[in-house]
Amino acid sequence: MIIVMNGSATDAEIAAVVARIEAQGLMAHVSRGSERTVIGAVGQERGLEPAWFESMPGVARALRVVSDYRIVSREAQPEDSMVRIGDVAFGGAAPAWLGGCGHDWTRETLSAAAARIKAAGGRLLFAGRGGHDNPYRYRPMGAADLAALSEVAAEHGLVAVAELRDLRLLDVYLELQLGGLLLPPHCLRQVELLREVGRINKPVILQRNNRVRLGEWLLAAEHVAVGGNHRIILCDCGSEGEAAGLDVGELACLRRETHLPVMVAPVAAGGANSAPILAASALLAGACGVLMEMDAADMLNLQAVLEAMRGAASLRHAHG
Amino acid sequence: MIIVMNGSATDAEIAAVVARIEAQGLMAHVSRGSERTVIGAVGQERGLEPAWFESMPGVARALRVVSDYRIVSREAQPEDSMVRIGDVAFGGAAPAWLGGCGHDWTRETLSAAAARIKAAGGRLLFAGRGGHDNPYRYRPMGAADLAALSEVAAEHGLVAVAELRDLRLLDVYLELQLGGLLLPPHCLRQVELLREVGRINKPVILQRNNRVRLGEWLLAAEHVAVGGNHRIILCDCGSEGEAAGLDVGELACLRRETHLPVMVAPVAAGGANSAPILAASALLAGACGVLMEMDAADMLNLQAVLEAMRGAASLRHAHG
Amino acid sequence: MIIVMNGSATDAEIAAVVARIEAQGLMAHVSRGSERTVIGAVGQERGLEPAWFESMPGVARALRVVSDYRIVSREAQPEDSMVRIGDVAFGGAAPAWLGGCGHDWTRETLSAAAARIKAAGGRLLFAGRGGHDNPYRYRPMGAADLAALSEVAAEHGLVAVAELRDLRLLDVYLELQLGGLLLPPHCLRQVELLREVGRINKPVILQRNNRVRLGEWLLAAEHVAVGGNHRIILCDCGSEGEAAGLDVGELACLRRETHLPVMVAPVAAGGANSAPILAASALLAGACGVLMEMDAADMLNLQAVLEAMRGAASLRHAHG
Amino acid sequence: MIIVMNGSATDAEIAAVVARIEAQGLMAHVSRGSERTVIGAVGQERGLEPAWFESMPGVARALRVVSDYRIVSREAQPEDSMVRIGDVAFGGAAPAWLGGCGHDWTRETLSAAAARIKAAGGRLLFAGRGGHDNPYRYRPMGAADLAALSEVAAEHGLVAVAELRDLRLLDVYLELQLGGLLLPPHCLRQVELLREVGRINKPVILQRNNRVRLGEWLLAAEHVAVGGNHRIILCDCGSEGEAAGLDVGELACLRRETHLPVMVAPVAAGGANSAPILAASALLAGACGVLMEMDAADMLNLQAVLEAMRGAASLRHAHG
Repeated sequence: MIIVMNGSATDAEIAAVVARIEAQGLMAHVSRGSERTVIGAVGQERGLEPAWFESMPGVARALRVVSDYRIVSREAQPEDSMVRIGDVAFGGAAPAWLGGCGHDWTRETLSAAAARIKAAGGRLLFAGRGGHDNPYRYRPMGAADLAALSEVAAEHGLVAVAELRDLRLLDVYLELQLGGLLLPPHCLRQVELLREVGRINKPVILQRNNRVRLGEWLLAAEHVAVGGNHRIILCDCGSEGEAAGLDVGELACLRRETHLPVMVAPVAAGGANSAPILAASALLAGACGVLMEMDAADMLNLQAVLEAMRGAASLRHAHG
Repeated sequence: MIIVMNGSATDAEIAAVVARIEAQGLMAHVSRGSERTVIGAVGQERGLEPAWFESMPGVARALRVVSDYRIVSREAQPEDSMVRIGDVAFGGAAPAWLGGCGHDWTRETLSAAAARIKAAGGRLLFAGRGGHDNPYRYRPMGAADLAALSEVAAEHGLVAVAELRDLRLLDVYLELQLGGLLLPPHCLRQVELLREVGRINKPVILQRNNRVRLGEWLLAAEHVAVGGNHRIILCDCGSEGEAAGLDVGELACLRRETHLPVMVAPVAAGGANSAPILAASALLAGACGVLMEMDAADMLNLQAVLEAMRGAASLRHAHG
Repeated sequence: MIIVMNGSATDAEIAAVVARIEAQGLMAHVSRGSERTVIGAVGQERGLEPAWFESMPGVARALRVVSDYRIVSREAQPEDSMVRIGDVAFGGAAPAWLGGCGHDWTRETLSAAAARIKAAGGRLLFAGRGGHDNPYRYRPMGAADLAALSEVAAEHGLVAVAELRDLRLLDVYLELQLGGLLLPPHCLRQVELLREVGRINKPVILQRNNRVRLGEWLLAAEHVAVGGNHRIILCDCGSEGEAAGLDVGELACLRRETHLPVMVAPVAAGGANSAPILAASALLAGACGVLMEMDAADMLNLQAVLEAMRGAASLRHAHG
Repeated sequence: MIIVMNGSATDAEIAAVVARIEAQGLMAHVSRGSERTVIGAVGQERGLEPAWFESMPGVARALRVVSDYRIVSREAQPEDSMVRIGDVAFGGAAPAWLGGCGHDWTRETLSAAAARIKAAGGRLLFAGRGGHDNPYRYRPMGAADLAALSEVAAEHGLVAVAELRDLRLLDVYLELQLGGLLLPPHCLRQVELLREVGRINKPVILQRNNRVRLGEWLLAAEHVAVGGNHRIILCDCGSEGEAAGLDVGELACLRRETHLPVMVAPVAAGGANSAPILAASALLAGACGVLMEMDAADMLNLQAVLEAMRGAASLRHAHG
């Protein structure tokens, strides 16, 4: 950690910072510049908090030298990770995808989506209950929904992936032998949930939208990983609300930071019409796959997305 | 709800929107302007979703006329609400406060904070375990922490208020007979938690930071309220991260939107040094009280905050 | 315009809104719903300001039905526009590009960039003086810089495009017979500059970064267009600062809103390394071309970007 | 400057960074930690740009140790500055204020505002032409407006302060002998304008809204100050658009960073109704004064604001 002192910091204030560093078992290097003094804390800095120093008199800023995420960082593992859900590889040579319903589905509409997925060569089916914002239309994902998803998937020979928001349902998930879990964006700060997911041996998709910063996303992944579950796939849902969007520059940036496979959800990010171009753009920028919301109202053209994905994959292959 | 069509919308597209409105049991009013057609849906619009219409061909925008929150809105109840925790009234004539530890406390440091609160005339003690970001310093609020809080509060004759993040602990909370619950900002989108809190008869403090929009905050309050628990206090924690801040303009705006009492957390928003001026500014702008984090490192001057609060209250009294 | 009244609005407040609408020569349609009254102003609403109504008692919100931009909107002209700089068509079948130096260039480094552009088949050269943030390294684009750009372009048989920030230099620009102008993002709110640019008959590139909202960008374009200059190209520079990024979802969204050609600046958005994938992704999402900053420190691989662009163009061609 | 290398940085990459630092005349200190190497550049770092290093291979981040603003920083001058416009002191013991019209005024409405200001004991009158967003209602501040402001101010015995957006009008400003200039928020990145204002000996008010970061605001002030004009007053206009707001926490933060006087514009930030409480809150948080927009539609209660200001000032006096 590096602690930058104010220009007017006194010797006593500097000494106090040094003492605090040493009390934590690290070594302090004091470097006096022309305008400011900079103190480096050398050693296992992950045990330190910048906030400890920033509240001390005379300190201007404290900042970590190492990232807060260790297991999921590209520095820890230079080569890309691959995570399988069922027999579908996320992070392999070919782009992967899963389809399903994220909002207002019934057993019938989910079954129709499953049939379309199967016909298109897909092997994974997900279901969730998004859109919890309206207090007068609250409809959580319950045990019956999980059972329905599990049955519909089995009927079509697909592997089920279920959204998880409520810790209390984790046992039901495990009993149903689902192929994977999907955590929606607002769950990335539910540390208790992340830690529990870290203890089970199931692939988990961590969704994110543009209100979650890259660093927060990776921290959430690290919370899962420290429990032992390294089967993590990141899924970018882009912008929520009015300004639909999907940032491929951030995606490229993220790929430099982590070895985890990254997929995108183009329907959430830009609507059904934009899905083919967003999917292709994201694959070009390094995404490993696509999650497709097929809720009835969205009228997604599945074939168009898959074609665009194939085109992008061949282009990526051709240009390295 | 109002649906604005594109300038190039066809009659068939307009008719489809009208049909969808009528299928939901509302009446449609079509108004053709010089450039665009506008369709009003008259009736119980809370059952409609703007997204249903925005995905239809020819639709430019759909927007609610009524707010999504009904019980907590100022329109529903013009006069201010008052919520008591123990015998402390939030929303009454005098400013209220609670103190405690939000981060790295032990039984000893919490007890020291309780003694300071008691000496300053306070009657409420809270405890939480914030700062979950670091995966290598994870320390959740567990049953033992709750028991410790409960005991320390009893020893000093204070009423305990506990942070709640983990739904699975709700039973322990109820057994311990705590005076109130406090939900941190990231829990405002954990609808399952909000709905459970809505079923119990305990005052609940809903914290928010600058990453939560006012409308989202009020929606979270509505989720609690629909369950029957109207004992809700809003608490603004200001900006998180580098740009410390507390927006008193938003606070005034919020007071126009809701009758719920609003308090602020000036230490979270601006650090211990800024706490007196932030507390006084917030009271002037209509806040009903203050939550004071007294974690050791922050070295909060409790007396200075209370004096500033008294001054602000008398100024507010003098100027209506 | 639509004016939504508060639930508690009185008849007198409603009448006052109606009177104000009629005083502006429009007709008012009053629609009383179960919870709120909504008033529509029918007629030439572009002369009205929402703020006029939102400051009146009893008014909850006022919002335009038509967009603030008329000339540049897709509604006004459904087919794509094409704008030529020299003989390079932006918005045609083939992707277009220009290269140059945006920051710390000398006559020598600019000349080197020009040679590389020429060798790669390019026909346009731009130069600017970005990076004005540091008060101790201030270096504006002056008349001598413009002359240098003009000469270097002529020496290599390229058409010059110059950044314009300072209204006082407009005469110099016109004398030098440059091929086009480029306005950096922070100039989009300099209305005086936009209006002057609207009076000349030169192609103008309006740059934008992620701190400018889509609506503001289009308003700036409309300010240029109302003066009579419709030769406008939009150029997205993505995110500035730490979080490099380029949002292809917004790009698709923008293409639905406007008929103007949209290009991107992938080096500004994501650095030289990411430029090929960002350029290809943006072309797939509907961009018409690319602006490449070739400042020495960035070490851009021009060939890699052009190859990626060709690949994306053929993919777009294949998939419609 | 501190340069943090990637964990996988090679010796050659480290050497290249050292060479670049030394080529700029600074000394490099290399500190090898357990996970990363950190290089400090000791000497006159204001000549360096972080971007130079961040584009080099093996570099994770580069960051300044000293701030980019020198003259306006609190470190450079610990005691508060005071700036006079006419005989009104901004930054003195008593709160200061100026009133006027910022949008759609005529000579008559401006004169009416001037009469109200005079009657309330005010001594300064400003005028501007905000609201340039609508291309179909464009109305810039021209020479005739400046003359009208000058005359109206003289008629009422007030000192005139005029908004400046257009560099070409600077000569008119100087001829009219105005008491001060006011630059609206979007001009903070118009460096050419800031530099010119830095050469004249007139007090200048630099406005800012919530889309300008504190650091950018101070950089703009530094651009003015390097030219020799240190008579700078900062004026916070709060949030623009829907989310009205004024952040008193940021204000306190800003006061720690700079010795310049800071005022607020509560009408812009929260509307006429909220102006008294926002003004009082801001004074408590360290603001030196208030700018009051008195455009007709806003119906500002001037006396209520002044009373609230007096109350806040006495409270601040009482509590130090």
